[in-house]
Amino acid sequence: MTTVGVGMVGHAFMGRAHSQAWRSVGPFFGPPLTPVMAALAGRSAERAGAAARELGWASVETDWKELLRRDDVQLVDICTPGDGHAEIAVAALDAGKHVLCEKPLANSVAEAEAMVAAAERARARGVRSMVGFNYRRVPAVALARDLVAEGRIGAVRHVRAQYLQDWLTDPESPFTWRMDRDRAGSGALGDIGAHIIDTAQFITGHAVTGVSALMDTFVHERPMPGGGTGQVTVDDAALFIGRTDGGALASFEATRVATGRKNALRIEVSGSSGALSFDLESLNELWFHDATEDAATAGFRRIVVTEPVHPYAGHWWPPGHALGYEHTFTHQMADLLTAIADGADPSPSFADGLQVQRVLDAVQRSASSGGGWAAVEGTPVGSV
Amino acid sequence: MTTVGVGMVGHAFMGRAHSQAWRSVGPFFGPPLTPVMAALAGRSAERAGAAARELGWASVETDWKELLRRDDVQLVDICTPGDGHAEIAVAALDAGKHVLCEKPLANSVAEAEAMVAAAERARARGVRSMVGFNYRRVPAVALARDLVAEGRIGAVRHVRAQYLQDWLTDPESPFTWRMDRDRAGSGALGDIGAHIIDTAQFITGHAVTGVSALMDTFVHERPMPGGGTGQVTVDDAALFIGRTDGGALASFEATRVATGRKNALRIEVSGSSGALSFDLESLNELWFHDATEDAATAGFRRIVVTEPVHPYAGHWWPPGHALGYEHTFTHQMADLLTAIADGADPSPSFADGLQVQRVLDAVQRSASSGGGWAAVEGTPVGSV
Amino acid sequence: MTTVGVGMVGHAFMGRAHSQAWRSVGPFFGPPLTPVMAALAGRSAERAGAAARELGWASVETDWKELLRRDDVQLVDICTPGDGHAEIAVAALDAGKHVLCEKPLANSVAEAEAMVAAAERARARGVRSMVGFNYRRVPAVALARDLVAEGRIGAVRHVRAQYLQDWLTDPESPFTWRMDRDRAGSGALGDIGAHIIDTAQFITGHAVTGVSALMDTFVHERPMPGGGTGQVTVDDAALFIGRTDGGALASFEATRVATGRKNALRIEVSGSSGALSFDLESLNELWFHDATEDAATAGFRRIVVTEPVHPYAGHWWPPGHALGYEHTFTHQMADLLTAIADGADPSPSFADGLQVQRVLDAVQRSASSGGGWAAVEGTPVGSV
Amino acid sequence: MTTVGVGMVGHAFMGRAHSQAWRSVGPFFGPPLTPVMAALAGRSAERAGAAARELGWASVETDWKELLRRDDVQLVDICTPGDGHAEIAVAALDAGKHVLCEKPLANSVAEAEAMVAAAERARARGVRSMVGFNYRRVPAVALARDLVAEGRIGAVRHVRAQYLQDWLTDPESPFTWRMDRDRAGSGALGDIGAHIIDTAQFITGHAVTGVSALMDTFVHERPMPGGGTGQVTVDDAALFIGRTDGGALASFEATRVATGRKNALRIEVSGSSGALSFDLESLNELWFHDATEDAATAGFRRIVVTEPVHPYAGHWWPPGHALGYEHTFTHQMADLLTAIADGADPSPSFADGLQVQRVLDAVQRSASSGGGWAAVEGTPVGSV
Repeated sequence: MTTVGVGMVGHAFMGRAHSQAWRSVGPFFGPPLTPVMAALAGRSAERAGAAARELGWASVETDWKELLRRDDVQLVDICTPGDGHAEIAVAALDAGKHVLCEKPLANSVAEAEAMVAAAERARARGVRSMVGFNYRRVPAVALARDLVAEGRIGAVRHVRAQYLQDWLTDPESPFTWRMDRDRAGSGALGDIGAHIIDTAQFITGHAVTGVSALMDTFVHERPMPGGGTGQVTVDDAALFIGRTDGGALASFEATRVATGRKNALRIEVSGSSGALSFDLESLNELWFHDATEDAATAGFRRIVVTEPVHPYAGHWWPPGHALGYEHTFTHQMADLLTAIADGADPSPSFADGLQVQRVLDAVQRSASSGGGWAAVEGTPVGSV
Repeated sequence: MTTVGVGMVGHAFMGRAHSQAWRSVGPFFGPPLTPVMAALAGRSAERAGAAARELGWASVETDWKELLRRDDVQLVDICTPGDGHAEIAVAALDAGKHVLCEKPLANSVAEAEAMVAAAERARARGVRSMVGFNYRRVPAVALARDLVAEGRIGAVRHVRAQYLQDWLTDPESPFTWRMDRDRAGSGALGDIGAHIIDTAQFITGHAVTGVSALMDTFVHERPMPGGGTGQVTVDDAALFIGRTDGGALASFEATRVATGRKNALRIEVSGSSGALSFDLESLNELWFHDATEDAATAGFRRIVVTEPVHPYAGHWWPPGHALGYEHTFTHQMADLLTAIADGADPSPSFADGLQVQRVLDAVQRSASSGGGWAAVEGTPVGSV
Repeated sequence: MTTVGVGMVGHAFMGRAHSQAWRSVGPFFGPPLTPVMAALAGRSAERAGAAARELGWASVETDWKELLRRDDVQLVDICTPGDGHAEIAVAALDAGKHVLCEKPLANSVAEAEAMVAAAERARARGVRSMVGFNYRRVPAVALARDLVAEGRIGAVRHVRAQYLQDWLTDPESPFTWRMDRDRAGSGALGDIGAHIIDTAQFITGHAVTGVSALMDTFVHERPMPGGGTGQVTVDDAALFIGRTDGGALASFEATRVATGRKNALRIEVSGSSGALSFDLESLNELWFHDATEDAATAGFRRIVVTEPVHPYAGHWWPPGHALGYEHTFTHQMADLLTAIADGADPSPSFADGLQVQRVLDAVQRSASSGGGWAAVEGTPVGSV
Repeated sequence: MTTVGVGMVGHAFMGRAHSQAWRSVGPFFGPPLTPVMAALAGRSAERAGAAARELGWASVETDWKELLRRDDVQLVDICTPGDGHAEIAVAALDAGKHVLCEKPLANSVAEAEAMVAAAERARARGVRSMVGFNYRRVPAVALARDLVAEGRIGAVRHVRAQYLQDWLTDPESPFTWRMDRDRAGSGALGDIGAHIIDTAQFITGHAVTGVSALMDTFVHERPMPGGGTGQVTVDDAALFIGRTDGGALASFEATRVATGRKNALRIEVSGSSGALSFDLESLNELWFHDATEDAATAGFRRIVVTEPVHPYAGHWWPPGHALGYEHTFTHQMADLLTAIADGADPSPSFADGLQVQRVLDAVQRSASSGGGWAAVEGTPVGSV
């Protein structure tokens, strides 16, 4: 049995999710490469040590650069905040380590471009890279992509994508680094807006080419945990409409103040002969309308995406048994390990991540201009 | 019993809907003024005569101007295409007839402004006017408005409004005057976009102050009924995002190619302490989220809006019995007759119709500029 | 134009619903016989007179027998409580009047049998009879029936039918005659249980052949409007399971204490190759599952039953415009008038009503025995 | 850190689910006892060895009795088919091992009674036992139980429970031991009917006291994998209605031929002041109606049960992130380990399992008698 040693950087929310996936991918997917959870890197030896014990990592490093020097680490899994992605990923790739990097790929287009360049250099040497847009691997989302690719909805004309959360509705919700522009880059836009841009481009196979955007902040000061208040310098919400290189009209909304919506990543795609609809709050369901059916019985079908014939689902339980949020990460690890073993490029690539970054950049330019049109700069790239 | 004689102009789809409402308002609402269906005006004596017999009108005129001369007509109900609204409404008001005018109020801002001026002249003489945005009188929509007005969702922050239809998805769907810009003014925008603008402004009490917009046509030629093809010169779809004078962000989509959606006027409003959601395809339901509830049991409630305590519903059947599309017109007639009897101004006013017209105008200017920002011109007006 | 004079007995809830239908059937269905609303019969001249004016009836009788003597009445429409049905219907049929009788057909099997005998005598003379199970004419229910008849779900194996209301949940809800066994016969069972039995038999084409049943009353005393309390002697709820002559298993629940359910007549039918689901609270929708579809995309489809191709819908409005409760009565009148004009037997027949009565009787026998099995007596009859 | 050694018997579907739960309970719940996956017992050394490697067990036994002799095993986890439960559980308890036994507890009332006796003997020595009705630990189901216990729906009057699957709809679905009465005891009844009985009793706190039941088989012969056909001697479907010791009426349906329903364990509970509704196909949602609310805004609320305040949910991910089927087993392990550490009895107890067995027995007696009433024998027991 061939193994691949994994070194993970970061052990917060994403580190926990990735750890569960590294533990689960073996039993359920029997991948061609067996991951070995070799080392966890974190700044504090104490906290990283506790996390390693809890999450199942064999050793600890307090400097992520040590991972690059270890022979038992062949893959670096980057779970840090976005401002660390570029440095770690470029160094790891240049050191010959495969890289899985959390989304969004970077905090700027320039960083993302440097990462794509590093990924291209590495690829020439058989070293692989992947960005963690995990929602591509919700079975219902993967099925949606397949149906579009098979032509089941015809030419895509409309995309309506929303990512609605409500955790900042309450003005007493405390200030964190996520509300500070210097550290987070943006608010709802980069955090959840990035997801709907990627999901929309993934399902349709189109790239967004330009946007008109509005962003706003509804609560400008929030209490600091230690007392006093912090100034919110990022967006609570971002709205934009745009066009795609495939001729579709698209609308997007990312907001953390959509009262009552907990995690509603919703996407509806209308084509010339069918349509699809998805909501992450009901993640085991895909709605599909086939306009070629008899008019008397046509309608949106609620497909329960838990059957052996559906993407990923057959690896888990018998038909009809629901999956959850965490399974998307296990799917991601399975596909990554398979690609490495096959000498193939995994998807989504860093180039896919750059394309999302360019759309985010256009959204910010448009919003800064007061809602004017902003083209997405750069040639559409990647394996979208 | 006091009566009011009604003269209706036009007898197509809207004429049929209004006739059913004039017939039904008496038995179910017992209004203070009893309508008498005095005369139907239509260009063809033959067709108007047949329609009058079928729909219950006592006499026929082939020139609508005759209605203004008749002493037995005190109210003119305008059900013609939009290009006739201004002339008829202004003449009728100046002749001292109350006017009910179908939506959209006019085909241009200039026409709408002239109509508002006539309405103001008439009002000084106790003559009333109303524009037919009938969806305000879906019980669930009226309830939504009441809940917002009562502060049940707090300050409105987001509006997401869509009017999705699919009757032009099929490229073989024939060419009609509705696809000719010279006659229809615009396509999806004026027809169904006007409805969501009005509904959004009605529920929130905000006025839209500016927009960024995109419009597109997906099928450029359609078969003519008699052979050959017609050029489609209007939009199949219009998308826009905007801001309101109450500080909310709003998104709008009006499309006739949303495959599989039959009549999905959907609106979701998020506020600082609650939210509302409605879909015309399920018109007896309103979804309401109260964020002041205990977190363990908070959630969007499906209110079945058929109870005596709900707007309009108690006039019809016992609790739990569904209403349909046509009932909105009966509610409209009941409110209009009550306003006339009370010497009060009915709502929505012509000024409300003008405000919608100004937003439509801004959308077209923005779309023509390629998605740039366009302010809604003129002071927000009306009894919105 | 040929007309048929209608005399209606009763002017409460059902009388109002029938009047609206008699007024509307002409404009929307253009039936081969035009109904003339000739006379309304009610015991109190004053109240009947007011109702006639409000509802559009040309004259009033205080004794329903007078209707049978009038030459301008060819059709008697019975909207009285159930204990009056048998006497009026038999007399009217024997007098040569067509009869439309509200459901349930009667308060006992014996009465229903007498009515069927009268209907058979009358039919020999070309006189028609129909029982008013109006829910058969919800477009979605009629479509369900059509799909089953066309074999779209294969052999029916399961029926799960519920009629859930909640208006008696509150113990302070006042006592009325509907809670008195002597006058109402039964409670939830006869009132709403009758509807689900008929709907199930109609959609499937099967007859129920035996049942095991439980009935119960949760609130035994209710306040009298004038003070004091009344003893509730009927059921709040009836549950039963049974078999059909087509080999299906069926479950039924009729209850007035299903807290939060307003008018939820729900029926789901599972067949060997498909399934259907309906809920009266969303009456413009039918859910259909076609098990012959590809497993990857099979699912229950939400059919919006408002298209021209659907039963009845094309007579009303353009595609996508919702109908409501009242329209079922207009459909009923249209079909009845057409049958009379064609010299055909309308459906549901009195024999269909008798079959329902026999199932109700078996339910009561089973419940009285403490849940033992009770066969439905009599040969299945009628045009089910 | 104190540990508990686990020996698991069986490694099919349930063994895989339990293994994932034993692996996950530590990182997410930090239980007071840390489970050590000491040994896996299976008849075939080869297959058990492969399973142990795949699923993470440290050693293998080919005779489950060896587990009872091992000092490093303190807890026996029984994942075999039902016919082995009684022997293993009694022996393990008598050997002083804590026992977790999959549902249904046994294949007969007699076996279940013997197991309860063994559990009581063991409990006197501080040895714990639990039966694996995992659906009690869906967060939405646990929340439902809490709401009923807190009186939020008042006195329970109605339970309507269904477990609808469709994997036997297709007559070509092959014969397995599950269709052989000698080996499986019953069909849909024991397999999925047991789940809805337990879930209904758990949520309401009531015990079923008697039933009227019908069972049927729609496909009598199925193809054998090796050729030929097998006779189906169990039920495809079981329907029953009953009463509870708390005065409620209850209906149940368990079927494997509910075409189009994949895993629809649905339960709706109506009380005197509220109601609850759940569907396992949407397992992160609970619907709650509070009848004490204002009538204008009352309605069933869709609670997304993913918030920190909800049972179990806070141990996993940030708010709004969906769980799946497998998490119920992790919750079960967490509660079991906590109970053992606390010296408390876990729930559901073997007595709870016996109560379900007695209801299943009554159902079979009633169905055998042709639908007559059958009392549930024995005093209601357990910590329901």
